[in-house]
Amino acid sequence: MLPTITWENDAVVMIDQRKLPSKEVYVRCRTAAEVARAITTMVIRGAPAIGVAAAMGIALGIRASRAAGTRQLAVEFQKLCDRMAATRPTAVNLFWAIDRMKRVFAEQVGTGAPVDDIRQALEREAHRIHDEDVASCRAMGAFGASLVPDDARILTHCNAGALATAGYGTALGVVRAAAEAGKRVAVLADETRPFLQGARLTAWELVRDGIDTTVITDNMSGAMMRAGQVDLVVVGADRIAANGDVANKIGTYAVAVLAREHGLPFYVAAPLSTIDLATPDGDHIPIEERKARELTHVAGQRLTPEGAQVRNPAFDVTPHRYVTAIVTERGICRPPYTESLGAIVKGGWGR
Amino acid sequence: MLPTITWENDAVVMIDQRKLPSKEVYVRCRTAAEVARAITTMVIRGAPAIGVAAAMGIALGIRASRAAGTRQLAVEFQKLCDRMAATRPTAVNLFWAIDRMKRVFAEQVGTGAPVDDIRQALEREAHRIHDEDVASCRAMGAFGASLVPDDARILTHCNAGALATAGYGTALGVVRAAAEAGKRVAVLADETRPFLQGARLTAWELVRDGIDTTVITDNMSGAMMRAGQVDLVVVGADRIAANGDVANKIGTYAVAVLAREHGLPFYVAAPLSTIDLATPDGDHIPIEERKARELTHVAGQRLTPEGAQVRNPAFDVTPHRYVTAIVTERGICRPPYTESLGAIVKGGWGR
Repeated sequence: MLPTITWENDAVVMIDQRKLPSKEVYVRCRTAAEVARAITTMVIRGAPAIGVAAAMGIALGIRASRAAGTRQLAVEFQKLCDRMAATRPTAVNLFWAIDRMKRVFAEQVGTGAPVDDIRQALEREAHRIHDEDVASCRAMGAFGASLVPDDARILTHCNAGALATAGYGTALGVVRAAAEAGKRVAVLADETRPFLQGARLTAWELVRDGIDTTVITDNMSGAMMRAGQVDLVVVGADRIAANGDVANKIGTYAVAVLAREHGLPFYVAAPLSTIDLATPDGDHIPIEERKARELTHVAGQRLTPEGAQVRNPAFDVTPHRYVTAIVTERGICRPPYTESLGAIVKGGWGR
Repeated sequence: MLPTITWENDAVVMIDQRKLPSKEVYVRCRTAAEVARAITTMVIRGAPAIGVAAAMGIALGIRASRAAGTRQLAVEFQKLCDRMAATRPTAVNLFWAIDRMKRVFAEQVGTGAPVDDIRQALEREAHRIHDEDVASCRAMGAFGASLVPDDARILTHCNAGALATAGYGTALGVVRAAAEAGKRVAVLADETRPFLQGARLTAWELVRDGIDTTVITDNMSGAMMRAGQVDLVVVGADRIAANGDVANKIGTYAVAVLAREHGLPFYVAAPLSTIDLATPDGDHIPIEERKARELTHVAGQRLTPEGAQVRNPAFDVTPHRYVTAIVTERGICRPPYTESLGAIVKGGWGR
């Protein structure tokens, strides 16, 4: 299993995703502030993974607390939650994980638990979020594999793999599960500018797993579909609104439009923690705009001339009408999503 | 005027488009072989520009010839033409320019001209191709400007600018002419991986001209259209088939599909030398596949892991049904293109 994020005694350890695939460097975060910075600077990225990181960061911060009483601890806890919530705005898993930590904190305080017990309960919850995420990915894979025919050529965008989760992956979990079920699969990985998650991360983890992987530039996916080189698309998600609109890495929308133009299924694989029933539709999802430098420079070299402006929205929204199905750890949701997502989150099943 | 390509006594001088915008370096080609290499390695690129380069390269080669008689000169001339024709397969302007040189050669030989006269005639023809290309771009700009509303936000892909032509540009000629006519225009430039013609070249020449320019990654154009940030698309072309199918830089097809999805006009600006009536449709246009390294490395740094395959088609084909109009130096062609392109090439007019 890929070591996306682990807890080692006094530190949260992450593989530095900015350096892959040329260097395998591990970052040891010894404070909550370091974890927050790692999320913001994309040492770790991917909606489920940053949820895990935020939970571990909070647990780490509380572990370091010198608060003698619950009241002081509550003040520090709130600050830690606020700090984590301020790292990145789009992936709802981050806020979901923080909410889980808040619920545990409130329960512990409600039962009059001493500070040490609260600390341990928060640490346990962070580990639980981590472990559940891996289990979710495995379950998603099992459901999603049923959508993948033998000899499938699968296009994916960004990295929704082991590196974007606690392990195994969402979209790449579907690919892995199909391969483990004995199906032959080949992956076309969009390189995914500007951060190049596809070229660097998706290709790296799939090649490690011996899965046939071809990297293309983002602007090739349409031509590949037209040439009959793609059988289906599967991507992850950063937030899914109640109506099924999907926020995901910038460029996902274009891939979805192209998939529909070519009559190809467009699947989204995401855990329930990505579904945000409180957000009615994609127009209400905050889209992070990141620094221009991510786009203007590669490997320290400036690409664009001085004087040219730059836009760098990190995500876009794919309206639900382009989404063939949403694969979760509880089953596969199909349109109308307002019904199927609501039912699956409340414990029912999709179709 | 940008010095894309000039003839200086004993050399063809080109600005090195691989180095822009960080360095303005000029490459002096003193032999036809050096010109051919410059085309293959993309020191110079852009369909009209490589046509000019090939003509100048042939003239340069003949100038260096020691052939005493016409028969020996004809052998060398054919070799030069073959060498130029082998540089790049997709842009038809290259073959069109070589054909013009062949016609002049045949005419000269037919009139019994001495070797020195033939040399001079070929040199004159190369200059004429250069100068006509600039005039064509200006005329295209004048026609195309009528399609651009005031306050237009124009999306373009790759570089169809002064650097892709002998000067002024095709798609960017339309932008320039609209600006010169007093219209306010803003350009969204797709960065255009892998060679980054948009980020490096289009942005560079538009910023020099004081035109409002914003660089985006290729995967952002769909989201920008959906956000209402684009009013029209204009691109160049490398070859236009008789039915109006357009071969252009990889990614053009995706932009065209997205434009239609958003009800936006998709214009192609190209000189008549780009229209290839001998090619019935896009399926018959040869598409160059370039080296993987263009995609796997940026600024000398490897992006993709070992073991991942790579595809690198340099062009794609946009079927004519996505093309709103084709702007040429003789007027604007509209569907059905089988009629309008045929008429305009034969000297008639489009609508």
